[in-house]
Formats: sequence, structure tokens, C-alpha cells
Amino acid sequence: MLTRQTLHDAHDRIRPYIHRTPCLTNQTIDQMVGASIVFKCENFQKIGAFKARGGMNAALQLTDQEKINGIATHSSGNHGQAVAFAARQLGMPAYVVMPRTAPQVKKDAVRGYGAHVIECEPTLAAREATVADVIARTGATLIHPYDDDHVIAGQGTATIELIEDNPTGKPFDVILAPVGGGGLISGTALATQLLSPSTRVIGAEPEGAADAILSLKSGQVEKAPYIQTIADGLMATLSERTLGYIRQYVHEIKLASDDEIRAAQRLVWERMKIIIEPSCAVPLAVVLKYKNEFTDQTIGIILTGGNVDLGKYFS
Amino acid sequence: MLTRQTLHDAHDRIRPYIHRTPCLTNQTIDQMVGASIVFKCENFQKIGAFKARGGMNAALQLTDQEKINGIATHSSGNHGQAVAFAARQLGMPAYVVMPRTAPQVKKDAVRGYGAHVIECEPTLAAREATVADVIARTGATLIHPYDDDHVIAGQGTATIELIEDNPTGKPFDVILAPVGGGGLISGTALATQLLSPSTRVIGAEPEGAADAILSLKSGQVEKAPYIQTIADGLMATLSERTLGYIRQYVHEIKLASDDEIRAAQRLVWERMKIIIEPSCAVPLAVVLKYKNEFTDQTIGIILTGGNVDLGKYFS
Repeated sequence: MLTRQTLHDAHDRIRPYIHRTPCLTNQTIDQMVGASIVFKCENFQKIGAFKARGGMNAALQLTDQEKINGIATHSSGNHGQAVAFAARQLGMPAYVVMPRTAPQVKKDAVRGYGAHVIECEPTLAAREATVADVIARTGATLIHPYDDDHVIAGQGTATIELIEDNPTGKPFDVILAPVGGGGLISGTALATQLLSPSTRVIGAEPEGAADAILSLKSGQVEKAPYIQTIADGLMATLSERTLGYIRQYVHEIKLASDDEIRAAQRLVWERMKIIIEPSCAVPLAVVLKYKNEFTDQTIGIILTGGNVDLGKYFS
Repeated sequence: MLTRQTLHDAHDRIRPYIHRTPCLTNQTIDQMVGASIVFKCENFQKIGAFKARGGMNAALQLTDQEKINGIATHSSGNHGQAVAFAARQLGMPAYVVMPRTAPQVKKDAVRGYGAHVIECEPTLAAREATVADVIARTGATLIHPYDDDHVIAGQGTATIELIEDNPTGKPFDVILAPVGGGGLISGTALATQLLSPSTRVIGAEPEGAADAILSLKSGQVEKAPYIQTIADGLMATLSERTLGYIRQYVHEIKLASDDEIRAAQRLVWERMKIIIEPSCAVPLAVVLKYKNEFTDQTIGIILTGGNVDLGKYFS
């Protein structure tokens, strides 16, 4: 069970290794929505995404004996980099199982942190089998991308900072974060409930990976009707654990289409001059889509990451 | 003659209208150069560029009578937006002469601030004739993009903040800014000379608009051998005034090629997750190119702006 103390302990634990990222505001976007939005810029975080927090908090829980054998995970995205980063900070080996079809740039990024990249076929079954094999062979500890209370507590530390650093002088009416496997929204909702209980929490999910909205409705883990979205960091399915937190602390889940996500992403690039990835734009897409529901509110949004392939722009 | 008092007065004058932009650092880039670099992020400034400072300082010098008739300029770039922005802040009309070939998005941006856009043929002669006609007709006051001490003092206020907010705890060994018409580098060099006289100042110029390096060598305003560069904000030629400041206070001008500029721009996008325009990347390109000359130094770089056409990425 995660408590206020667990969250603050996680924050104290990871603080030497992470950035306290800035909270930015933008007048133009505020005017478009008719509200006051604070963006917590985890795109400026170590590895370019909030996942450094959860990975670091989980890695710091290992015993000295476990540290010798290191940590393992499977991920084609930011969590792989987070595990590699955490392992390097603590001087232990990391094993990241990645589909052989993952972009070279992502494999290189993980290797750049000194981790071992183990390639597998691009199926969930192959990924899980390969990581099990790696763990059996090396004795490494699995760090799951979201089905792990240490990871969830780590992700929740972004919301501690968002609430503490809120520049508006008014308490948040609502805080939004994207929903993939549910680790971030769980940590966000927990931290909000514990530090600012009158603030609502809304999960923002792509239409093309809409499992969480169904799961929250039915009360059990559901699969998305289909998986097709530019928000490539949000394709995972909730676990029993993250669904539990969501049912308890998240007030609502709202969907945005790829076109709406892309428009929100472009708006942030153009107006705020910062780079965010598509997965990161879903909460703003939701706020723009349902702006009548947010009029005059003070809104916190976790901007989750900025890892995009810029080849298209610089080619 | 610009003094320390002139600069501080300019800063006090424009402060209510502009952002105090953040100073950012990046560990990866520091390691690549072997130095400690502080980036003054004027891409986060009002209108997305430092030019809001100079435009605002010049506009604020107008008498009440002059304010009725408003301000005028010719510009296809950020200075046009700066004049439009300043006029709107002060409730006066603005007239911006732009070549009819300027991108629609730039004309729209100027119109977005409520300014009148007057189109002309895309030649310097047509631009100057058209702005003279506009001034004759309206009584507006010309705000030149750089050949104006009020504008130069305004641009220098970015360096005041850079020096005051320097997060390294060590004084700057060198400060770099791009060179186009010379307004920014003049203000930068003046402010540095007045506030941190032991700091060197280096101007960074594209190879494809290399007039300032020649002018500094010969001591008179020279034309660039050719004009062809992706740094589209740096194509202007020095004036007698800006050459005078450069001769007095700038230690050196260094060149970078378009490939080097593009690589530096991409590095900032990828590693710092912020959007900068090509003109803005020239100082970092110079630092990367001549990194042996900067080893172990504390370096300040003015990141001048982030106004780029993102259509290529989002198409």
C-alpha cells in the first residue's frame, strides 16, 4: 500500500539522480482553452522522460547482493532507457529485451547507457520468454514498466513537484496524465489524492488504445478494441494493480483521436518551443477537445517525454 | 553612447512586457565540448525571439504624440513580429512592410498581433521605398531592426539576465551570440563589457553571410562574398553603428557552415528538447567546431529564437 510517506521517501531517494523539471505556462494555450494550465515538463527529465523516476526508485530498492546481478526489463521505449540509466547510475548491469524491429536509434540509446540489448521477435510472448530466460541466466531483477509499486511511487514524484511548484497561486482543480499501462496515472492519482485531495484526476487515453476507459467501466482488465495510434508509448494494457489504483483514485478517463493528439503536439512545439512526443500530447488534446468542461479551471498536465525521431525534420 | 545606466534603464523599462527567460544547461553537450555551457533561452521569449526586447525598448521611447501615429518597419522575420507585439502592448498602430514572397505563416503571425502588413516586391530597394511611403503617409516612427541604439540596448538586456542568472557559480570566460545586422552582438558585447569586463565576446556568423568577419578585418562595412545560408535571420549587413560596437567590444568573429549549423540545431532539439531556429544554432556550431579552444571554459550562449516552420515535420 502506497502512503504519503512512501511517496516522499521515493522522492528523497531519487532526488540526487533526477532533475526537478520546470513547470511552464503558455498564455496562448491558456487563451485557447479559457483556463490556466501548468505543464510539468518531464520531457526535460533525464533520458527525456518521466520513466527515469520509476526506474530509479525501483533500482534503488535492490539489496547489495541483487545489485551485483543487475536489473532487466523488456521495452521498446522509454522504460528501457530508464532501466539502463538507473543501472549506470548505480554501477550495475542492465539487460533490456527489445524487439528486433525496434528502431536502431532506440537500441543505440539503450546501449549508450551501457546496457546489454537482447533482441527478440516482436511479440509479447517472445519478449516475456526472452526476459525470463535472461533473468534465469543472469539472476537479474525484473523491473516491470508499470506493474510495480516502486515504479508507481517513482512516477508519482512528478506530481509532488507539480503541486509544490504550481506557479499560479491557485490550487489545481484537475490534474491530467496519459494512460498506457497505468503506472504514471496511478502514481499521479495517488500523489494528488494524498497531497491535494480536492483535485480531480483525469486519465487521457488514445482512441486507438482504449483499454483503460473500458476497464474502468467494467471493473476488470479489458483489452482495447483495436491498437492503432501515433501515441506509441501508450499501447500497453492495464494490470490488475494499476486498474485498482485507477478505480480508487482516477475520476474519469477521456479519449482523444490521433488527429487531436497530433494537433496538440504541434501546438506545444509551435507555441511553447519545446519538443514533446505524441504520447505526451494526449492530455492537452483532451483539454482542447472538451474545453467547455475546463473553463476557468487551474489545470496541471504532466508532459511525459520528448523522445521523437527527428530524422523527418532534419532529412 | 550606451552606458551601464542606459542598459539597466532599458531593462527596467521593458521588464513588465517580456519574459525573464530561463538559463538551461545540458550535460551531454557539456561532455561533447569539454566545457560548461549556459544557454540563455530567448526562444521562450515573447514572439519566440529576443527581438521582443529591442522592439519594446524602442517603442517605449516614443512621445505620446508619436504613439498616436504608431511605428513602422520592414522585416520578413522576427523583428516584424517584435514591432507588431510592441505596438499592441502599447495600444498603437504598427505597419510592417514585408516582401510579398514571405511565407504566409509569417504574414499571419504579424497580423495576429494586430499590425498592418504592407506587401512589396522582394528587394531591399522596394522594402525601403515602401516603408518610406508608409511613414510619409501615416507619420509612424521607423524602428530599424538593428541600426538603432534603443534596439541595441534592448537586445543587450538578455545578457544582463544571462550574467545575473548564471547557474554555474563561475564567471563566464566567453559569451557568444549570432551576427546578422549586428544589433544583438552589439548589445551583448556592450552588456558584457559593462558587467563582466574580463569575459570575451565572440560573434558567430554563417559562412553563407560572412560580412561581419570581413568588416571587422578591414574596419569598414563590407558585403558578404555571397548570401546563401539556412540561417535566414542572419543575412543582413552590418551598419556603421553596429560595426563600431563590434570593433570596440567584440573579440572575434567565427564562421560555421550550414552543415555545422544544422548539426548543432539538431543536437539542441534532440538533447535539450527545445526548438531553436537555424540562425540560433550558429554559436553552438562554432563552439563544437573549435572545441579545443573552449576546453574547461564557462561559456554563455544566447539562443536567439525558435520560430521555424514545422510543416515539414507534421505533414
